Amino acid sequence: MLLPQLKDPEQLKSLSVEELTTLADEIRRFLIEKLSVTGGHLASNLGVVELTLALHYCYESPRDKMIYDVGHQAYVHKILTGRMDRFDSLRKQDGLCGFIKRSESKHDVWEAGHSSTSLSAAMGMAVARDLKGEDNKVIAVIGDGALTGGMAFEALNHIGHEKRKLMVILNDNEMSIAPNVGAMHNYLSKIRSDRHYLRAKDEVEGLLKKIPAIGGRLAKTAERMKDSLKYMMVPGVLFEELGFTYLGPVDGHDLEKMIDTFHQADNVAGPVLVHVLTTKGKGYQPAEADSYKWHGITPYKIESGQVLKAVGNPMYTDVFGQTLIELGREDKRLVAVTPAMPGGSGLFPFAKEFPDRMIDVGIAEQHAATLCAALAMEGMKPVFAVYSTFMQRAYDQIVHDICRHNANVMFAIDRAGFVGADGETHQGVYDIAFMRHIPNMVLMMPKDENELRHMMKTAIDYNDGPIAYRYPRINGTGVVLDKEMHNIPIGSWERLRSGDEIAVIACGPMVQLAEEAAELLKREGIQVGVVNARFLKPLDDTMLLDLAHAGTNMIVIEEASQAGSLGSAVLEFFAEHEVYETRVHLMGVPDIFVEHGSIKEQRQLTGLSVEVLCGRIKSMKALSAFPYGKTTTSS
Amino acid sequence: MLLPQLKDPEQLKSLSVEELTTLADEIRRFLIEKLSVTGGHLASNLGVVELTLALHYCYESPRDKMIYDVGHQAYVHKILTGRMDRFDSLRKQDGLCGFIKRSESKHDVWEAGHSSTSLSAAMGMAVARDLKGEDNKVIAVIGDGALTGGMAFEALNHIGHEKRKLMVILNDNEMSIAPNVGAMHNYLSKIRSDRHYLRAKDEVEGLLKKIPAIGGRLAKTAERMKDSLKYMMVPGVLFEELGFTYLGPVDGHDLEKMIDTFHQADNVAGPVLVHVLTTKGKGYQPAEADSYKWHGITPYKIESGQVLKAVGNPMYTDVFGQTLIELGREDKRLVAVTPAMPGGSGLFPFAKEFPDRMIDVGIAEQHAATLCAALAMEGMKPVFAVYSTFMQRAYDQIVHDICRHNANVMFAIDRAGFVGADGETHQGVYDIAFMRHIPNMVLMMPKDENELRHMMKTAIDYNDGPIAYRYPRINGTGVVLDKEMHNIPIGSWERLRSGDEIAVIACGPMVQLAEEAAELLKREGIQVGVVNARFLKPLDDTMLLDLAHAGTNMIVIEEASQAGSLGSAVLEFFAEHEVYETRVHLMGVPDIFVEHGSIKEQRQLTGLSVEVLCGRIKSMKALSAFPYGKTTTSS
Repeated sequence: MLLPQLKDPEQLKSLSVEELTTLADEIRRFLIEKLSVTGGHLASNLGVVELTLALHYCYESPRDKMIYDVGHQAYVHKILTGRMDRFDSLRKQDGLCGFIKRSESKHDVWEAGHSSTSLSAAMGMAVARDLKGEDNKVIAVIGDGALTGGMAFEALNHIGHEKRKLMVILNDNEMSIAPNVGAMHNYLSKIRSDRHYLRAKDEVEGLLKKIPAIGGRLAKTAERMKDSLKYMMVPGVLFEELGFTYLGPVDGHDLEKMIDTFHQADNVAGPVLVHVLTTKGKGYQPAEADSYKWHGITPYKIESGQVLKAVGNPMYTDVFGQTLIELGREDKRLVAVTPAMPGGSGLFPFAKEFPDRMIDVGIAEQHAATLCAALAMEGMKPVFAVYSTFMQRAYDQIVHDICRHNANVMFAIDRAGFVGADGETHQGVYDIAFMRHIPNMVLMMPKDENELRHMMKTAIDYNDGPIAYRYPRINGTGVVLDKEMHNIPIGSWERLRSGDEIAVIACGPMVQLAEEAAELLKREGIQVGVVNARFLKPLDDTMLLDLAHAGTNMIVIEEASQAGSLGSAVLEFFAEHEVYETRVHLMGVPDIFVEHGSIKEQRQLTGLSVEVLCGRIKSMKALSAFPYGKTTTSS
Repeated sequence: MLLPQLKDPEQLKSLSVEELTTLADEIRRFLIEKLSVTGGHLASNLGVVELTLALHYCYESPRDKMIYDVGHQAYVHKILTGRMDRFDSLRKQDGLCGFIKRSESKHDVWEAGHSSTSLSAAMGMAVARDLKGEDNKVIAVIGDGALTGGMAFEALNHIGHEKRKLMVILNDNEMSIAPNVGAMHNYLSKIRSDRHYLRAKDEVEGLLKKIPAIGGRLAKTAERMKDSLKYMMVPGVLFEELGFTYLGPVDGHDLEKMIDTFHQADNVAGPVLVHVLTTKGKGYQPAEADSYKWHGITPYKIESGQVLKAVGNPMYTDVFGQTLIELGREDKRLVAVTPAMPGGSGLFPFAKEFPDRMIDVGIAEQHAATLCAALAMEGMKPVFAVYSTFMQRAYDQIVHDICRHNANVMFAIDRAGFVGADGETHQGVYDIAFMRHIPNMVLMMPKDENELRHMMKTAIDYNDGPIAYRYPRINGTGVVLDKEMHNIPIGSWERLRSGDEIAVIACGPMVQLAEEAAELLKREGIQVGVVNARFLKPLDDTMLLDLAHAGTNMIVIEEASQAGSLGSAVLEFFAEHEVYETRVHLMGVPDIFVEHGSIKEQRQLTGLSVEVLCGRIKSMKALSAFPYGKTTTSS
């Protein structure tokens, strides 16, 4: 066993290729075993075992910068850089992060979570290196899926122009999370499939010699033909046209060939793109057979490949997916648009029934949003199904193309609120704050999965502009689903429980939490109101004024950035209406990035718990005895 | 004169090419004359006269959808669609919009202002057309500059994959606003400059016949060579590889050739890219000679080409540009990054003195932001110089790459607040609302250009994470500039005027407005406090609590979205600190998109005026006589 002795990537340099191959096997076994207990990104990591070994064998980390796009495929890198013994804690609170994390190791130089940032990072590091007069290598590892993200192209365009020395490794496994779409994918497939390319170069040289010399007017054309021909027969012309030296494709499971290619790349002056072909799930049959399912996986039985699923109520995502089919049957205008998340967004059933009305644009949130605007303006009812965190990529398109056009686009914002194990890069806690200030936007959040259905119906019947519903990455409450869907009046809240002195204004899963708190306090003889603030914009003006007039103070609780979200909207509303006597207390996510852990832990950490809410209600009640707030009483 | 009779683009169809050419001349004269008085985007419109004529000659608007990227080059389209008589009001309040505007004409089908959205729009319209079983054409006109925006590539990738019928016209004038950068630009230049390409096709056919037949093992390679060769000699292989049929390049000032090419394009089944070469400023010598200067122009003298500049104090932008040089001399870590706005952002002087430390990435805000993060993480001090409205494109990168990494990136946010004639697509009123909730961000706004200098110094000396200063698109106040720059304590506000009962909390140009109001009211015997809230995040906690303890009520005034900006932050602060007795009134930009006009008109329209402020102060004063707000007193 070589693996247990491995403490530092420097040790790799003294190993033979045979030993590296043995090590690769050991790493695979380690990953398959560990992840069978913790879950995690298995397939992508099995795919890059040799690639990561070859990189650490050829280069000197952290002097040479290794930048992993997204970073979910960096488990092997973590193993090679002394973090093997922490894998039991993978993606758990205070445990090993599922992505690159600078606080974990000096070998982690660039964090991500969202895709397509690695090329910009590499360029930045290359520019800094050159300005500082240093000579380290800069290496970005990017998947073919991430290459469809617009910012990756922006970076390619810049890198190819400036001609600085850096290396892009295109890890081509024909997959992002979902099977790839897009012209770039088709182009790469052509290179992959045409084995001819791999042996064409020598033959071309020979053939060129057989073309007779041509004189006269055509001589120059003939010369040019020869150049073009030689050039054309080499794959990767697209990257060459963009200013890169293209090397490959090279088998990403052949250590010797990869090491050779990296050495070759080192001798190139400007930017090099090395096209590496890998197989997702390599070495574990169930993952190889269905790499989509095994991209991110829950615990499983190693022998059978049987995935151990937690039992529970259907997820909000599933209810969304099922309901979308019902609506799609009723309304032919409905079109679903996803940026490479057909499965994660629960769209597979819809795609199966309505293949023509299902559009997967690849990792391309900006394009997806603007495409939706145009679809809506031509009479369709597009639903942009997107995770809250990835919607951040489309902020400008939402402002400029959707809301400014007042286009009838529906947003299905999944994973709104805490997301658990994916951690700080994926938290869906900003969308209220970044959407609430955009004119024309209507923004909803259901208290349970049944209300989600009614919101979806409300959205499809609404024809006055953009409308969004956001829902969390959790199981539903298990409530009975109404068969008939109805419209919810725009801007109407729901008073679930009355209590004149204090009301909790809650949205989404916080409604249930508020109900629990109210129930507990009831046993202590304290009556607390609970309001389901199902519209985050517009607010329920009437209800807010009624509450204020009744002398009710309020606690607004939400699993969203405390700055700028629902609580903030309520405060603005009272300021606008010159209601000064109502006390409003805010409970939301504080001004920090919340790291990985379970959703429950993340709520505890940020004080979004029944206990804290009960405490706040009591202290607000105590305070109400005074005519002014505590700051004044102390002055 | 043909132009005066032109009321509808249908009329063009009966004209001969000679008559169209005459019309082109008349349109040019019209544009040169009208814009000499109003100003506007002259050079780009002179460049597309024939192109727009050819489009309306060949296609049937609005049945066939013509989508103009950005839309600043659509003046000719406006002339051809019956809006000639409104050109005196161009970019004025209630006048003709400088971009495409659906409310102006049925021929305007897609509005923009930000670049690179047209391809996504075209794809959306093509999908909708196909779903509805219609057969209209969809045509996007996009400049070579806009093609560098990542979302354009996302769209190309999607369009090339789906193979729907649509036409992309690449209007290649070798310019975006600034001379283009990037590998795509180099690629297009190669096509442009190599005139050989234009006649290569026939010659290639002839040459191919001269290659002797080759048998045996090499036969297949030889066949492949022939195919490749033929293909390679045609320009535009990059677009062909992405799934488009490439036609061109065609002279964009030759009506006949363009019309032929469009007819040819109509016969192609899938997506076509027509590469049209145009000259910016065509037909007006001063504009042709310096199309950068003449991109967007103020009024000028036609004969001499002399531009009539308004006299005034230096713009904030100029002070930024000059100060950056001073800082660049002191600190070698300083690097300026711009997304294609070196001139508009005032960076030319810096670029001249420090060419190595000036990075223009093209229209690529996402890449620019992430590049800055990486530069900072490698010890540089990058300043991302960007207009507020375009920074919207980088929201996710600011959250995910800059703030989450807590990278020492400086933001110079220009055109913050109203922008005047560019109108609703360009208003810089959201950046406070979309940045304030991001952890680690420090956000400043100076009351005058001298304070801007101190903020720039503060930012470069600050090494604890991202820090931004935002400033308006106006002339400075004319204040004397301190030679020595100093640091402003982070989070410190400035009390400019005391007044115990009411204080106006203002930022940026609103500080001056507050001072004016206070001065006016002083004459009436009303003493009002004025605070320069120069930090939008963090707030000055001490000053806010001091004011509250003194029983001071507040009016927060800002030229920014009232939802989620500074006023909202003040309300949250008081809620957080359980300060309930302080009354806070908000004055900001209401929940609407504010259209084109002068900045003064835009302020008037949204109530950000001395008069309104005085009124609010008085009514707040009157209200203070009651123990509770007006809502309660009526109940």
